[in-house]
Amino acid sequence: MSAMIKAAVFVEPGRIELADKPMPQVGANDALVRITTTTICGTDVHILKGEYPVAKGLTVGHEPVGVIDKLGSAVQGYSEGQRVIAGAICPNFNSYAAQDGVPSQDGSYLVASGRCGCHGYKATAGWRFGNLIDGTQAEYVLVPDAQANLAPIPDGLSDEQVLMCPDIMSTGFAGAENANIRIGDTVVVFAQGPIGLCATAGARLMGATTIITVDGNDHRLGISKQLGADVTLNYTQCDVVDEVMKLTNGRGADASIEALGTQSTFESALRVLKPGGTLSSLGVYSSDLTIPVDAFAAGLGDHRINTALCPGGKERMRRLMNVLEAGRFDLGLMVTHEYKLDDIVAAYDLFSHQRDGVLKIAIKPH
Amino acid sequence: MSAMIKAAVFVEPGRIELADKPMPQVGANDALVRITTTTICGTDVHILKGEYPVAKGLTVGHEPVGVIDKLGSAVQGYSEGQRVIAGAICPNFNSYAAQDGVPSQDGSYLVASGRCGCHGYKATAGWRFGNLIDGTQAEYVLVPDAQANLAPIPDGLSDEQVLMCPDIMSTGFAGAENANIRIGDTVVVFAQGPIGLCATAGARLMGATTIITVDGNDHRLGISKQLGADVTLNYTQCDVVDEVMKLTNGRGADASIEALGTQSTFESALRVLKPGGTLSSLGVYSSDLTIPVDAFAAGLGDHRINTALCPGGKERMRRLMNVLEAGRFDLGLMVTHEYKLDDIVAAYDLFSHQRDGVLKIAIKPH
Amino acid sequence: MSAMIKAAVFVEPGRIELADKPMPQVGANDALVRITTTTICGTDVHILKGEYPVAKGLTVGHEPVGVIDKLGSAVQGYSEGQRVIAGAICPNFNSYAAQDGVPSQDGSYLVASGRCGCHGYKATAGWRFGNLIDGTQAEYVLVPDAQANLAPIPDGLSDEQVLMCPDIMSTGFAGAENANIRIGDTVVVFAQGPIGLCATAGARLMGATTIITVDGNDHRLGISKQLGADVTLNYTQCDVVDEVMKLTNGRGADASIEALGTQSTFESALRVLKPGGTLSSLGVYSSDLTIPVDAFAAGLGDHRINTALCPGGKERMRRLMNVLEAGRFDLGLMVTHEYKLDDIVAAYDLFSHQRDGVLKIAIKPH
Amino acid sequence: MSAMIKAAVFVEPGRIELADKPMPQVGANDALVRITTTTICGTDVHILKGEYPVAKGLTVGHEPVGVIDKLGSAVQGYSEGQRVIAGAICPNFNSYAAQDGVPSQDGSYLVASGRCGCHGYKATAGWRFGNLIDGTQAEYVLVPDAQANLAPIPDGLSDEQVLMCPDIMSTGFAGAENANIRIGDTVVVFAQGPIGLCATAGARLMGATTIITVDGNDHRLGISKQLGADVTLNYTQCDVVDEVMKLTNGRGADASIEALGTQSTFESALRVLKPGGTLSSLGVYSSDLTIPVDAFAAGLGDHRINTALCPGGKERMRRLMNVLEAGRFDLGLMVTHEYKLDDIVAAYDLFSHQRDGVLKIAIKPH
Repeated sequence: MSAMIKAAVFVEPGRIELADKPMPQVGANDALVRITTTTICGTDVHILKGEYPVAKGLTVGHEPVGVIDKLGSAVQGYSEGQRVIAGAICPNFNSYAAQDGVPSQDGSYLVASGRCGCHGYKATAGWRFGNLIDGTQAEYVLVPDAQANLAPIPDGLSDEQVLMCPDIMSTGFAGAENANIRIGDTVVVFAQGPIGLCATAGARLMGATTIITVDGNDHRLGISKQLGADVTLNYTQCDVVDEVMKLTNGRGADASIEALGTQSTFESALRVLKPGGTLSSLGVYSSDLTIPVDAFAAGLGDHRINTALCPGGKERMRRLMNVLEAGRFDLGLMVTHEYKLDDIVAAYDLFSHQRDGVLKIAIKPH
Repeated sequence: MSAMIKAAVFVEPGRIELADKPMPQVGANDALVRITTTTICGTDVHILKGEYPVAKGLTVGHEPVGVIDKLGSAVQGYSEGQRVIAGAICPNFNSYAAQDGVPSQDGSYLVASGRCGCHGYKATAGWRFGNLIDGTQAEYVLVPDAQANLAPIPDGLSDEQVLMCPDIMSTGFAGAENANIRIGDTVVVFAQGPIGLCATAGARLMGATTIITVDGNDHRLGISKQLGADVTLNYTQCDVVDEVMKLTNGRGADASIEALGTQSTFESALRVLKPGGTLSSLGVYSSDLTIPVDAFAAGLGDHRINTALCPGGKERMRRLMNVLEAGRFDLGLMVTHEYKLDDIVAAYDLFSHQRDGVLKIAIKPH
Repeated sequence: MSAMIKAAVFVEPGRIELADKPMPQVGANDALVRITTTTICGTDVHILKGEYPVAKGLTVGHEPVGVIDKLGSAVQGYSEGQRVIAGAICPNFNSYAAQDGVPSQDGSYLVASGRCGCHGYKATAGWRFGNLIDGTQAEYVLVPDAQANLAPIPDGLSDEQVLMCPDIMSTGFAGAENANIRIGDTVVVFAQGPIGLCATAGARLMGATTIITVDGNDHRLGISKQLGADVTLNYTQCDVVDEVMKLTNGRGADASIEALGTQSTFESALRVLKPGGTLSSLGVYSSDLTIPVDAFAAGLGDHRINTALCPGGKERMRRLMNVLEAGRFDLGLMVTHEYKLDDIVAAYDLFSHQRDGVLKIAIKPH
Repeated sequence: MSAMIKAAVFVEPGRIELADKPMPQVGANDALVRITTTTICGTDVHILKGEYPVAKGLTVGHEPVGVIDKLGSAVQGYSEGQRVIAGAICPNFNSYAAQDGVPSQDGSYLVASGRCGCHGYKATAGWRFGNLIDGTQAEYVLVPDAQANLAPIPDGLSDEQVLMCPDIMSTGFAGAENANIRIGDTVVVFAQGPIGLCATAGARLMGATTIITVDGNDHRLGISKQLGADVTLNYTQCDVVDEVMKLTNGRGADASIEALGTQSTFESALRVLKPGGTLSSLGVYSSDLTIPVDAFAAGLGDHRINTALCPGGKERMRRLMNVLEAGRFDLGLMVTHEYKLDDIVAAYDLFSHQRDGVLKIAIKPH
C-alpha cells in the first residue's frame, strides 16, 4: 500500500486546504523531490480566488527547493540525496516549441492529455506545476522531464537564497533581458513587488545606468534602491511620464518594464518610451488592454512590445544561481516570513492581504 | 529675381492644388533635384482629407525620382545631371536618434524649427518631405542632408522600376525584416495594397515558405500570388484565423504582418500567431487599439509586437535597387496609371476613390 | 536469439566493409528505424581514409531516411510504420549545451560513456551516428533521444527529395544563416560541392541579391546557377578577390561562406569581405589555419568569423522539409547515382574518386 | 596673418616632437576645439617607433577633451565655450558604411583624399585624428563632421574622468559588447592594460558573473579586481587554459576577450572557450595569426570570432559618460600621471617604457 503525502490543494474558489494525497509514482523520465522549502506566488492567490481556474484537488505551488528522493530509470548524472531546484516552468525540451526557441510555450502536454492550458490559452503550456500537474506546496513533488529540469544547488547557497530562482528571479530577469538593454540605457520599471524588484536587479546587472522604479509603496521603493534603482518615483505623488521626460531631457526612456498587469501601468510604460524604445511586459493581465493611438505614434514609432513567460530548465537555473553565488545581488532580503506547510492557510491569508510588509514567505513542509 | 516652380500644395481639407512657388535656395548640405517621376501615397490622401494635419501651402508628396540640378557646397561625390532617388524619410544621420539605431525617428529638425512633428507625435520626425518641409509633387525638390540621402540609380533601371523604393518597398520590406523571419516560417500578411504586396515580396525574399495573404479584393490577392504568396485568403469568404490554424495544423503562424491600420486586422494578426510569434505592424492607426486578453494570452505568450516607420538613407535605397537590378521581383506591375503633374487633382481623385484597379500612379512634372 | 542486420562498418584505414551485426535493443527513449535510403558524405571518406578516427567495427553513415520499426516505451506521438528522417546530428535537447543554445555541441554522451568525441575534440559531440554510435549505412539504425529527433516526412516528398535534409541541406543553410545576410547583400560562396551548393541555395532563400559562387569545376558552377548564383567564378581562370572587388565597385562582399576546409579558400573568404563583413565557415579543416594580418586589418576590421556544425532536431528537419514542400528549391538534382547497400564498397570507390560527375549517391539497404 | 599653435608631430621613426603649426581653418561642418586634456595611447607608441606609418609632420593623438572655440556655419545646437569630447574615431555618419552598421569603417575620406588608410588597410578609415588628419596632442584640434561627433560633457564630470571615453573605454566596452555576454556568463579577459581593464569593467556591467582576468603583472591584476574581476590569473604562475577549465568544471568559458594583440593571447582566448563560445578580439596584431586546428575543433565548434574598432560618435560618448555619471565605475584611477604638452617627449618616454606603474597620462596643453 502506497504512502500518503500532505499537500495544499485547490478545493473551490476561496479555499485552498491541506489534504492527504498518494505518493506519486516515478516514471522513466521523472524525479521525485522531497520539498524542503517552497513559497506562495501572486498567481497562487489568483487561483485561490478562482480568478485563474485549475482542476479541483490539484496541488498548488510552483517554486520547488528540495532533495532528490528517487530518480526515474532513464535519468542520468544525478544522485539521490542531492539538493536541487527546478524552474516554475518545466519545459519539455524535446518539443517542437522548445527547439523553435520558446520552451516555456510547449503545448505537447496539453495535446497528450487532452487538456486546454492555463486560462484556456494554448500558450503558457510549459507551466505545469500547480497548473497542469500537482505542484510544490506539498511534502513531495514529481518533476517531469527531470533530465532537463533538475538543477543542483551549489554548496554555498541556502534554500532561502535560491527560493527566488524558479519563478520570481527568472521572470524578473526575463523582463530585463527582453528590454533590449544596452550599456548606458535609461530603464523605467513599473511596480516593485517581488518580480518588479528582480526586474530592477536584472536591469542593473545588464548595464542600464539610469534605472527609474515606480510604485505607490515607499517601503518597496526603498528596497528597489538597494537592488539597483538610481531614481524612485511614487506615482501617488508625481506624474510619472512627466518626471521621466524631465529626467531624460525630453528624450524618453530606452526601455520600460511592466511588472503588474494593469491598463494604467501598461499605458504609462508605453508613454515613457523614446521613439524606437522597447516595452517589456511581465504582468498577467486580467482584461483587454488599450493602446492609445498617440502613445503608439499611430503605429509609426518603431516601438517594440515584448511579453515573457518565466524561462525554465536546468541551464537557466544554473545561471541564476551563478548570479547569487557571485554575490551580485542578495535576494534573500525578499524572504520576509516563514511558515510551516501545516500553517499554509494562514500563510495565504497573510500573503493575499499583503499584511506586515510581506514580500515572500518561505514554506517549510518538513 | 528667382525662378518659380509648379507644385501641388495643401490648401485646406479637401483641397490639394497646383501653385507656383519660388525655386528653393540650396544650402551647404542640400541638393536640388529636378523631379522626373513621383507618385501619390495613401498618406497623401489622409492629408488631402485633413485627417493628417500639415501646414497650409506645404508642397505634398514624398517619393522622389529625379536628376541632380544643383549640389550644396559641402556635398561630395555626386555630379549634377546624375539620376537619383531619395527615401521618403530623409534622416539626419548625424543625430542622436540615428546613431542610436532609429534614424527614421530623429526629432532634431523639430527641435531646431520649434515644430511638433507629424500628427503631433514626437516620433516619426525623420519624415520631412511633404510633412515638415516641401515635398516631391513638384518640378523640383530640395533634399536635406543630401550627402546621406541621395542614392544614384543604376543605369539599367527605369524611373517606374525604382518609384516604389522611397516608400512602398522600403516600408513593406521593413515589415518583413521586423517579423523575425527564419527559413521555413509561415507568415500571414494582412491587406494587399501596395505596402502589403511589398511585405509579401519581402517575406518571400527572406525565406518564409508558407506565405498566406489576406484581403477582400481578389484582384489584389491575384497580384500577391505573382509576388510570392503561397496561399491567398479572401476574408469576406472565410474565417481567416480558423484557416490559418488549419493550414498550420493548429500550430499557428510564426509571424504576421499588418499592412492596413485597423483594429480588425491588428487583432487577427495577433490571433493567428503561435505562442512566441511576432506581429510586425506597418499600418497607420487612426484610433486607439484594443489587445484582447485572450489573443494576448494574458501577457504570457512570449509575443512580440514590432512597429516600423519607413527606413531611409542612401544605403537603404542602394540595397532596394540591388533587389530590382537582380531581378528578384518586378514591382513595375504596381504602376497602373500615369498622369502629368498638371493633372494631379484628377490623379488624386482616381487614387483616393480607388477606381479603375489603381495601385500606384506615376506623376510626371516635366 | 536476436536477429542480425547488415551494416557498413569501419574495419581499418582504407577499409569500410559490409558486416552482420546484432539488431539493436530499443531503450525507453530510443526508436528503431528501418533505413529505406541513406547516402555517403565527404566525412565518411575521411573516415575511410583513416583521417578521421572512429572505433573499429562502428557502423558508418549519418543521413537516415526510413520507417519507424519500433518505438521506445517513453516515446509519444509517433506510430510504427511512419516515414521519418532524423538529423545527422541527434542532439540531446535536455543537455546544458542545448538549453544554452548550441544543441549540436552537447558533450553529455561523452561524459556518460567516458569517450572523447570526434577527432578528440570536446566540441561536436552532438554528432553521434557513425561517430559515437552505430550509423545509418545499415538495414536498421537506432535513433537516440527519439522524441526530439524523429521528424515525420510529409506525404508528398520522396526519399530522394528529403535525403539532403539530415546533413547537406542543414549544414549548407546554416552557412547562410550564420552569414548575417540582409536583403540586398553580396555573398560569395567558396566551393560548390553538395554543401556549398546548399549554402548558395540558402543565401538565395535569405535575400542576398548578388550571389557569387567559386569553384574550379564548371559543371558544379553550372548547377550553382540553377540553385541561385548570380555570378560564377572559376578560380583556375581568374583572381577571385580582384573579381569580387570589381563586381562590388571596391566595396567588398557583405559576407562569404567557406564550404571546403582549406587555407586557400578560408583566406580568400576573408579577403573578399568589406570591413565589417562576416566569414561563415562550414569546412572541416585538417590542419592549422593562418589569418594573414593584412586580410584581417590587424584585427581592426570589425570582422566576424562564425563556424557551424550541422543543426539537428525534429523542428530543424520540419523546417527544411517545408522548404522542399513549398517548391522553393529542387535538391533532387544532387542525387546523381543509386547503389544497393550490398554494393556500398563500390559506391565509396566512385564517391571518393569523384568519378562520373557524382554529387550524392542514394544507398538502398532493402 | 593666421595664428600658430603648438602640436606634437611625427618627425621620423623614433621622433615625435613639439612644433608650431598654423591654426586650422574651420569648414562648414567642422568645429575647432581648444584641448584642455588629452593622453597618449599604445597606438601612438607604435607610431613613434615607426611600426605604424603616418605622414611626416602629422599631429598625433586621438583622445580629445576640450572646449568649443569655433563652430562651422552648418553646425547647430552647440555653443562656443561648451565643454566637449569627441571619439578617437570620428565617423562620417552620412557614409554608406555608417548607414550599413559599421561607422568606424567608413572609407569615404580615403576615397576623397586619395589616401590609403591606416596601415594601408581599406578598413579602419573612420579613425582620422592622428592617423589621417591632425590629432589631439596640440593646443587646438579640428573636429570633422562636428554635428555627429561633438559630445557635451555633463557638469559633474572632470576632464580626467572622461579622458578614457574617446578610446580606451569605448574600445574596452566594445570588447564586452561583442562577446555576446548573457547574465550568468563566465568571461576570461586576456591582458589588463587600460583597454583590458575597461573590457573587464564592461563585462561586469553586462552581467557576467565569473570574470577571470589574465596578466603577468600583479599590480594590474589588482586593479582588475577593483574594476570587476572575480578571479585573477597570473600567466607566469599557472596554466591559464587548465585553470579556466577547472574553474568551469570542464565546461569552458562562454566568452573570452583578447586585449593585447599577440599569437599567444589569441590562441589561449580560443582554447578557454566552450563549444559555441565567442572570442572577442580587441588587440592590434602586428603579424599573421595561427588558428590551431584542435583549438578550432576543425571548424566544427560553433565558435564566433569578432573583432572591433573603437566605436565613435556623440551618442556613444553620451552613453559612456552616462556610465561614469551614474557612478558605476571609477576609471579615474587609470590616470596615473600628468604632464604638460611642453613636456610630451618625456611623457612618451615614460609611457613607452611603462615605467613607474604608468597606466594613462593626462597631457595638459594650456
